[in-house]
Amino acid sequence: MPPAVPPADSVDPLPSWKDGAVRRAILAYVKRVSRCGSPAWIPPEDRIAVLDNDGTLWPENPIPIQLAYLLDTLGNRVRQTPSLAKDPAVSAALRGDLAAVLKGPGSEEATGRLLSLTHAGMTPEEFRASVARWLATARHPRFARPYTALAYQPMLELLALLRAHGFRTWIVSGGGLDFMRVFSGCLYGIPPEQVIGSHGRVRFELQDGQPRLVKTIDQLVVDDKAGKPEAIHTFIGRRPVAVFGNSDGDLPMLQYGTMDQPRPSLGLLVHHTDGQREYAYDSRPSSSGKLVEGLRQAPDRGWLVVDMARDWSVVFPPVSPGSAMPACRF
Amino acid sequence: MPPAVPPADSVDPLPSWKDGAVRRAILAYVKRVSRCGSPAWIPPEDRIAVLDNDGTLWPENPIPIQLAYLLDTLGNRVRQTPSLAKDPAVSAALRGDLAAVLKGPGSEEATGRLLSLTHAGMTPEEFRASVARWLATARHPRFARPYTALAYQPMLELLALLRAHGFRTWIVSGGGLDFMRVFSGCLYGIPPEQVIGSHGRVRFELQDGQPRLVKTIDQLVVDDKAGKPEAIHTFIGRRPVAVFGNSDGDLPMLQYGTMDQPRPSLGLLVHHTDGQREYAYDSRPSSSGKLVEGLRQAPDRGWLVVDMARDWSVVFPPVSPGSAMPACRF
Repeated sequence: MPPAVPPADSVDPLPSWKDGAVRRAILAYVKRVSRCGSPAWIPPEDRIAVLDNDGTLWPENPIPIQLAYLLDTLGNRVRQTPSLAKDPAVSAALRGDLAAVLKGPGSEEATGRLLSLTHAGMTPEEFRASVARWLATARHPRFARPYTALAYQPMLELLALLRAHGFRTWIVSGGGLDFMRVFSGCLYGIPPEQVIGSHGRVRFELQDGQPRLVKTIDQLVVDDKAGKPEAIHTFIGRRPVAVFGNSDGDLPMLQYGTMDQPRPSLGLLVHHTDGQREYAYDSRPSSSGKLVEGLRQAPDRGWLVVDMARDWSVVFPPVSPGSAMPACRF
Repeated sequence: MPPAVPPADSVDPLPSWKDGAVRRAILAYVKRVSRCGSPAWIPPEDRIAVLDNDGTLWPENPIPIQLAYLLDTLGNRVRQTPSLAKDPAVSAALRGDLAAVLKGPGSEEATGRLLSLTHAGMTPEEFRASVARWLATARHPRFARPYTALAYQPMLELLALLRAHGFRTWIVSGGGLDFMRVFSGCLYGIPPEQVIGSHGRVRFELQDGQPRLVKTIDQLVVDDKAGKPEAIHTFIGRRPVAVFGNSDGDLPMLQYGTMDQPRPSLGLLVHHTDGQREYAYDSRPSSSGKLVEGLRQAPDRGWLVVDMARDWSVVFPPVSPGSAMPACRF
């Protein structure tokens, strides 16, 4: 006789979340807004969940993953064309002194030159191929895993829970739009048209009679802070009801989704408290206040604060080190 | 005995299209790319259809409908604040002399002032309410119908046919993003997140502790010509396979979707040839060449050209004059 299949209700949709106030509040919210006949019911078309990426869905330490891509790519460019290292911004970046690039007069131009060398002057398809090649071999310096094996397992479960209850999940991140699209599908199950990120203009041209787009850093749109609710309006045109972030850069998006909001809403901040399994950094006074105002406002606003050390039983997916997530083989 | 229900295959999905090469090519295309096992099959996620709005889905004569909204709204503003008419751009627009606004030095600033007075300085919700009020009472000067009763019936059938075959339909238009979203749902069945249009930055702010967005005309993105494929990449991140337009402003989008395209594609231009039932204007040398290059390129590119007089048995939906489309009651 085959083993009995457990009834659907008994399958835990959030096995990596420890029992506690946060887990219970999430489960109660998705149930009450999606259950037929519930007074808090939200029509499916308005079940819009927006999620930050760096620090919310995957790590942003010791440096943001896209910055690791930028530095590796810059190193390759300089190996091919050594004269590029004459640019002080390039040489500073390659010796690990980004502070020198990001401060002082001319820092905007210097940053622009680094972005130009690594994120522009190619088609989106060429950029995608470059990022995919990098993801296939790059390893996180501490966890020795491919970056695509470092999505937070509890957040992957949360994404699945939201979608199982009729939510559409959107990434709204300061990361690069085209960068995130390379892995958003295989890693998070989020298609390219539901990714919002920082981007420059792509330039359309006919080359030898064939149409192509070329990435530029012109007319840069930075999808951070107030830019997040602004981009949500431009791209989606609906107010989100569920908002997930991890830093003060996500505050405007949390405010937009949850304050003066006629629909029941869910705001959540991932608080990085787990130096053993991940990093504990966001509310140290020395960390330039990454998540200070958010923690201060959370109680009044009713936002959930995930204490990673306390609320997550697992941080990363249980794959053997060195292997990519099954769906993300590039 | 009840009358026999005809088998599904015998229900004509395009009753307002006359039998002919264009109708047959459309039906053959959607069938061969969506039929299971067809060598031309396209995965549903890549069945992306993009459609221009003005002149493709509804009329753009005698003036574009959004311009009629602008002029009516400007008239209301001047009645409330007569001193506004001291601006030569405002007075020229109100006496019907837009040519004076759009030409000569300072035309960009003048256009900006007209847009500012009618499309900025309010929340998207306030703008939506204003457009909805206008659509409820405004009538087309020649057809004496609400504008929402003037969608082209054959194009409504085409939208339904595409969606019935697993296509997602997106508007990609030079018209205003927030303007089109007011009626895209009720008129075309296209939700706000599938509308791409020209837009300024919306500015996020907390006012009296409540979040709100304010429309501006800063950082204007014009979704026309090369801006169309560029916006398609930014918003969708997939190449469309079916592209529908009516003017040379749609050429880059048609080229992007159909040239050097590994998937089977469908390009279509609506050619305005029907002065009796609608307008015949687009290829007159005196019309500033609205659709000249498109007609020239169409045969080589395999684009279908809809001759409205020849290919459409009906132009507008069969509703009694003066009544809005059932779903578009504001």
